[in-house]
Amino acid sequence: MAEVTMEKIVSLAKSRGFVFPGSEIYGGLANTWDYGPLGVELKNNIKKAWWKKFIQQSPYNVGLDSAILMNPQTWVASGHVGGFNDPLMDCKKCKARFRADKLIEEHALNKKEEIIVDGWDNARMRSFIDDEGIVCPECGAKDFTDIRQFNLMFKTFQGVTEDTSTEIFLRPETAQGIFVNFKSIQRSSRKKVPFGIGQIGKSFRNEITPGNFIFRTREFEQMELEFFCKPGEDLEWFSYWRDFCKNWLLGLNMKEDSIRLREHSDEELSHYSNATTDIEYKFAFGWGELWGIADRTDYDLKQHSQHSGVDFTYIDPITNERYVPYCIEPSVGVERLTLAFLVDAYNEEEVAENDTRVVLKLHPALAPFKAAIFPLTKKLKDASMEIYETLASKYMVDYDDAGSIGKRYRRHDEIGTPFCITVDFDTLEDNCVTIRHRDSMEQERIAIEELEAYLDERLKY
Amino acid sequence: MAEVTMEKIVSLAKSRGFVFPGSEIYGGLANTWDYGPLGVELKNNIKKAWWKKFIQQSPYNVGLDSAILMNPQTWVASGHVGGFNDPLMDCKKCKARFRADKLIEEHALNKKEEIIVDGWDNARMRSFIDDEGIVCPECGAKDFTDIRQFNLMFKTFQGVTEDTSTEIFLRPETAQGIFVNFKSIQRSSRKKVPFGIGQIGKSFRNEITPGNFIFRTREFEQMELEFFCKPGEDLEWFSYWRDFCKNWLLGLNMKEDSIRLREHSDEELSHYSNATTDIEYKFAFGWGELWGIADRTDYDLKQHSQHSGVDFTYIDPITNERYVPYCIEPSVGVERLTLAFLVDAYNEEEVAENDTRVVLKLHPALAPFKAAIFPLTKKLKDASMEIYETLASKYMVDYDDAGSIGKRYRRHDEIGTPFCITVDFDTLEDNCVTIRHRDSMEQERIAIEELEAYLDERLKY
Repeated sequence: MAEVTMEKIVSLAKSRGFVFPGSEIYGGLANTWDYGPLGVELKNNIKKAWWKKFIQQSPYNVGLDSAILMNPQTWVASGHVGGFNDPLMDCKKCKARFRADKLIEEHALNKKEEIIVDGWDNARMRSFIDDEGIVCPECGAKDFTDIRQFNLMFKTFQGVTEDTSTEIFLRPETAQGIFVNFKSIQRSSRKKVPFGIGQIGKSFRNEITPGNFIFRTREFEQMELEFFCKPGEDLEWFSYWRDFCKNWLLGLNMKEDSIRLREHSDEELSHYSNATTDIEYKFAFGWGELWGIADRTDYDLKQHSQHSGVDFTYIDPITNERYVPYCIEPSVGVERLTLAFLVDAYNEEEVAENDTRVVLKLHPALAPFKAAIFPLTKKLKDASMEIYETLASKYMVDYDDAGSIGKRYRRHDEIGTPFCITVDFDTLEDNCVTIRHRDSMEQERIAIEELEAYLDERLKY
Repeated sequence: MAEVTMEKIVSLAKSRGFVFPGSEIYGGLANTWDYGPLGVELKNNIKKAWWKKFIQQSPYNVGLDSAILMNPQTWVASGHVGGFNDPLMDCKKCKARFRADKLIEEHALNKKEEIIVDGWDNARMRSFIDDEGIVCPECGAKDFTDIRQFNLMFKTFQGVTEDTSTEIFLRPETAQGIFVNFKSIQRSSRKKVPFGIGQIGKSFRNEITPGNFIFRTREFEQMELEFFCKPGEDLEWFSYWRDFCKNWLLGLNMKEDSIRLREHSDEELSHYSNATTDIEYKFAFGWGELWGIADRTDYDLKQHSQHSGVDFTYIDPITNERYVPYCIEPSVGVERLTLAFLVDAYNEEEVAENDTRVVLKLHPALAPFKAAIFPLTKKLKDASMEIYETLASKYMVDYDDAGSIGKRYRRHDEIGTPFCITVDFDTLEDNCVTIRHRDSMEQERIAIEELEAYLDERLKY
């Protein structure tokens, strides 16, 4: 099978309206991306599938949508003001700027090794770079500045004056919006521990080296769950949610051998974490973190308790036990997940000699269009539009009357439409249409009046 | 009927988990708000209803999700760098800060008059304030600073250095993300004029005086459609979309006498606009703009064409006519709409002597929970959970076993749940449940196996 390169994905994404470079007419803006008519549907479908399984169908969890702009004390308490930094280093010769940790990781990768630099301090990184004789990837020089810590939070000013008193930050994660609301939500929803609070929303990180298409961007969307449980039961819940996340991916047809679970070593583990596992995806550029599942203990609630003076102790209504809940956090980025699903679904299939079709085998729940209606000729518009309108009241469907039926099949294969429905002249007689299946390319004839139930059944998620 | 005050709405919103003050444990942050478990569902339902009618079911429109961070040239072209200002004025005595236009409007309102200050320049506002003898609402002094223009865009810095070369803005509107993508979208979606591009997303405005709960906030979400049509056909499409917006509100049960349409006078109209109508809602604090529908002519595309050098001329594939399309823009804020729907749905009903129920008569499509399952006693948990799980796979439903059935009805009336389903001991024999209707409070007995179809029918939107 042909290799799935990033170039192919980026090119398909652009030409078909999934992902465009941001502000393209003005030469772009760093690594920003706009999601076109198909991309916004794919992204929304991913978010809906998450919300459905993590919130709607979960007897434990409720949702939240907290503000991007928060009181800056939040970020003092969370540790972001003090410690949310990247190790920054410049080449003195060509002035290129690098993340020291990434430089080391890439150097190792070139040697077919894997190194996890998380948890290393500046001195350790520096001596590794010196010992290994790592050179500037841009100009080849070996003359770097010292490593300095650069805070990744975007700052802005609220109100008319611009000084430290009005300085606020764009949130670098959605999680803290959950922690600060823990008590209000627990009280108003009358939830008992164990329970979780989930949220989908934008976060911003002033990354020094964004890249790999939509894998790492400065502006991105997170889907985070903070699941609160009794101390001592945390490791059990940790495995529960780790498995839940993995199964959610598999349930959306992600291939099992595209992902792997990587447990953080003791060295790499944050000081407050009891356990952390990354679900990694095999991207074209190597394994990359997709989903982080962390047992954060009572660290966050205690930090906020200390900084705000608010007591986060939970009292069990049955046993009267008092404790600050432990917290399990599965955190995933929507854009990264979008890329993984695109790569995973991308196939080139030889359908005849010298004839290859590109097909996105997206799970029907993720496909931008659930079905496309093809009038065989434009004369069949009325009958076709009637079907289109009925189906459009339930799903995103496309009406496509341009080019031969074969061309229309190929077009919808490329964007992952699971069902193509052709209206022909027989339709006017027998009230039936031809349904063609994306993956098998098989066709069947079905009565119009059964169409809705037929699709409902196959689109159920 | 009892008056619907803002206090009642704010209090219900907080106690039931619709809307909490943002960063509350740290004393808040200006006028930021977090949407709790019920608020996020209500907001999401409003967004889904918009997307369904404006994008999914529209044969004309497609969606987009463009980045918040855009190339700053965008805001030069759009006029935001030069002209997106509020008229700012301080009281010299008490240092309170005001928007001169709002000061005038409030002064008029206190005299039971209505004045539209949009379009006035500094001099005209100043002389009006002097002539009318308007005083500082805080301290009563009549000693104001000059009116100066304050740009409402939040700025931040991308990358490591902080200077004008790295200065970027948080978008003050989603519309420009649509205009800059006009060509990419038209090409990739093969749409023909007339067609529209819609988007839902966050915008940010550094308002001097945010307020009235969630009516005016610095961070907010917009739902904007830019509908491109042939010059000369713009006024027709303008009325089409104005009616479409109004009917969308009425279709979600907004009361006809809660809204009014206000056409902008020639004086108030932007220089590039052929027509603008505001749909206003009767809030507790007076009529407020809910939805602006504007005929923006070819102003935006031409501005971007001029600043980017990209030609936005459209060539009609049938007639070969060449023109820059005109654009109709219906633009509405999600939070504002959320407030309007909350106010509109809020009712206090006397159900017996000295017994009042609060009920949110939200359209079922907007209600956070579509149904609530009540086991009569906790012994009926198994049978009730089975129903809960079946329904939860399709809708947001609640499982509520706390307190008497009467108390549970009242709780769900207050949060707008249209159907309460009670499982009693007869259920184990006859496989039926009691459905109680929120608005009429009527009850009926229905077979469990018919429940799903029963709800599907009544929840259809």
